[in-house]
Amino acid sequence: MQELQERIRKEGKVLPGNIIKVDGFLNHRVDTHLMSDIADEFAKYFDIGSITMVLTAEASGIALATICAQKYNVPMVFAKKAKSDNIEGGLYQSEIYSYTYKKKITQILSREWMTASDRVLIVDDFMANGEAVRGLCDLVSQAGAELIGIGIAVEKGFQGGGDRLRKMGLNYHALAVIEKADENGIVFRED
Amino acid sequence: MQELQERIRKEGKVLPGNIIKVDGFLNHRVDTHLMSDIADEFAKYFDIGSITMVLTAEASGIALATICAQKYNVPMVFAKKAKSDNIEGGLYQSEIYSYTYKKKITQILSREWMTASDRVLIVDDFMANGEAVRGLCDLVSQAGAELIGIGIAVEKGFQGGGDRLRKMGLNYHALAVIEKADENGIVFRED
Repeated sequence: MQELQERIRKEGKVLPGNIIKVDGFLNHRVDTHLMSDIADEFAKYFDIGSITMVLTAEASGIALATICAQKYNVPMVFAKKAKSDNIEGGLYQSEIYSYTYKKKITQILSREWMTASDRVLIVDDFMANGEAVRGLCDLVSQAGAELIGIGIAVEKGFQGGGDRLRKMGLNYHALAVIEKADENGIVFRED
Repeated sequence: MQELQERIRKEGKVLPGNIIKVDGFLNHRVDTHLMSDIADEFAKYFDIGSITMVLTAEASGIALATICAQKYNVPMVFAKKAKSDNIEGGLYQSEIYSYTYKKKITQILSREWMTASDRVLIVDDFMANGEAVRGLCDLVSQAGAELIGIGIAVEKGFQGGGDRLRKMGLNYHALAVIEKADENGIVFRED
């Protein structure tokens, strides 16, 4: 997606440790116009008319998923990080490793809000190792729901999360795949 | 706000310990149409034309704040819970106590995304003890930015957070103030 790649080139910052900061428009300060354009772009890859919900993971995926759900006219559901005390029993749970927080995290989702009749589009702003999305796929599977596709805004291609999902034959699309990021700048996969 | 009160009456659940669950449309599964109506309602109370950003707290406020920011044509910024390693130096920080997680939490916000020239509308989905919003006000103050107002969708009026902000003379509005919630149902303040 041209517009997204240009924003990353112009405003993204590469920090030591292969950290790519896009927090000026994607995941700290959020440009909702760009989110809307990303939602339109996803609609080219997925059978949006058939989905019953958009699913994402707390926290930074929520903004993009909200705009997508609004545009596709379905509810947005986000998996929470355990353990808050105001979710009663009846949960789907998946264990993931957070490289950001350097610890295991349990994703939880109330069984009330995803069932076997749901057709789910997973959306997230950022994919690195792919643990968050792996956990979300697991939740969809626990519900017996149908996974329609996985839409990611920015993928760090060199960390392998996206390629693992592609190899599994899932309907996975990332709109900007960063192949390399260092002091010389950012290189996208299709460059 | 009539529509919001009706949704709470119809779909809200009261759990032991004064916990009010509205997670079917507000903070786990999110109804973006309702969020849009809430954003329109906030616009009656605040000088929307003058704001430069909408500020909220990770995580459940993000969905509502995103729809508000989209409608008001400004960026949405959310304070993060420390400590993720992909925020570099230059942070505003505030310490709050999370009754949900039963521990101290540090809210962090990059200095890049709020400065003294900003005019800030704080938005959150839910107010109980008001710690999250107290922390956000502190961040606004650290930035030397101007606080234009605080808009809350659902306030648990009996827990005092909202009343403390009202007493401080802040431009604070909650669209549904729950005065009492028990096995007999939910009573709103204006009832």
